[in-house]
Amino acid sequence: MKPISSYITEGQKIIIPKGLSVDEEIELAVVIGQKCKRANECNAMDFVGGYCIVLDMTAADILIPKGFSVNEEIELAVVIGQKCKRVIECNAMDFVGGYCLALDMTAADIMAHARRTGGSWLIGKGFDTACPVSKFIPKADIPDPHNVQLWCSVNGEERQNANTSDLLFNIPHLIYFMSQYITLEPSDIILTGSPPGMGPVKKGDVIEGGIVGGTSLRFVVDAE
Amino acid sequence: MKPISSYITEGQKIIIPKGLSVDEEIELAVVIGQKCKRANECNAMDFVGGYCIVLDMTAADILIPKGFSVNEEIELAVVIGQKCKRVIECNAMDFVGGYCLALDMTAADIMAHARRTGGSWLIGKGFDTACPVSKFIPKADIPDPHNVQLWCSVNGEERQNANTSDLLFNIPHLIYFMSQYITLEPSDIILTGSPPGMGPVKKGDVIEGGIVGGTSLRFVVDAE
Repeated sequence: MKPISSYITEGQKIIIPKGLSVDEEIELAVVIGQKCKRANECNAMDFVGGYCIVLDMTAADILIPKGFSVNEEIELAVVIGQKCKRVIECNAMDFVGGYCLALDMTAADIMAHARRTGGSWLIGKGFDTACPVSKFIPKADIPDPHNVQLWCSVNGEERQNANTSDLLFNIPHLIYFMSQYITLEPSDIILTGSPPGMGPVKKGDVIEGGIVGGTSLRFVVDAE
Repeated sequence: MKPISSYITEGQKIIIPKGLSVDEEIELAVVIGQKCKRANECNAMDFVGGYCIVLDMTAADILIPKGFSVNEEIELAVVIGQKCKRVIECNAMDFVGGYCLALDMTAADIMAHARRTGGSWLIGKGFDTACPVSKFIPKADIPDPHNVQLWCSVNGEERQNANTSDLLFNIPHLIYFMSQYITLEPSDIILTGSPPGMGPVKKGDVIEGGIVGGTSLRFVVDAE
């Protein structure tokens, strides 16, 4: 879940909570806007993150709460273009309005606790500024979203470099699945998944990432 | 997490997914609007539900997704009146704008799976129409929110009758905790907890609940 306060745009800092270490991750994850879902009835979908967010290109620094150990994950995000529910896979791409890049800032320690205890993922994924996003990418600029090379570096050192062809679930399936339960609205976004390679980030780190030869983003990490 | 599509108002039906049984629960639960959190760092807060919602008094029938077994929980909900972050307990009530009643429709089977596997609560709590709410209750009408007798019945048979004095966490603590990580915004709501007694509800059931001597709500259950 990514609340509005988790969104920041480039030039704004990611703030790491006091006393915590922060990991950096590059990934494709799945996120849905204000109306969203998390797969629970099939094992496969347990690996897909469904977060509740609103694409908000306005502002605020990235702020990692005090005491959190936070990973960063770069992801290709799908921006929903039309309200839809119970979409079938063969029509799903019709509801895609475009794309963006997103950093799925994840409080690794909080998430580990939530997973271990069966608790909610809300704070681990949804603290203020936990979802920095890039500018909107027109749909036509990514003719095949399942063949996009993503990269992410921290302080200039590459940490992740992966192709969206490695996604566990393709975009039509994600839209199909989520829309079975939760109406998708224009500007809802879906983060499509994360490859391995993430690591901790700390105050002052510069996270850069993007599509090879395409849109990129850059954020500074700060701590409370 | 309660997406916008989960909110419905009185006179609209709760729809139960095809083939599923639905439980009815009365409770006080904790919910926060678009910016919210779930306690993960202390055991106590593991019992508090923090959902991502927007108070939306407009419309849609309650719609329980196909295949879900859904409980219903009536709760006293706090409506945030002012934007706030890192609120201290002694000031927390200043940020309360009022109250409402809410039914925290919960897909018991999906939630059990999520808790067992460490998965997200999003679909189990956030399917469309999973959070019917009453009319707004002015703050002055509930001078002591920690001494409110709540009731809930299904088809006229009382299932739950409990006082908010039994809450695991009082309202100032909930606001304090959530606001450590997630900015609270006006119209965000906090469901404050659930007492035992919930049971399944099925298509055609009429759920009624309220504050003894005060505001009440009434919803019809329907199934996809």
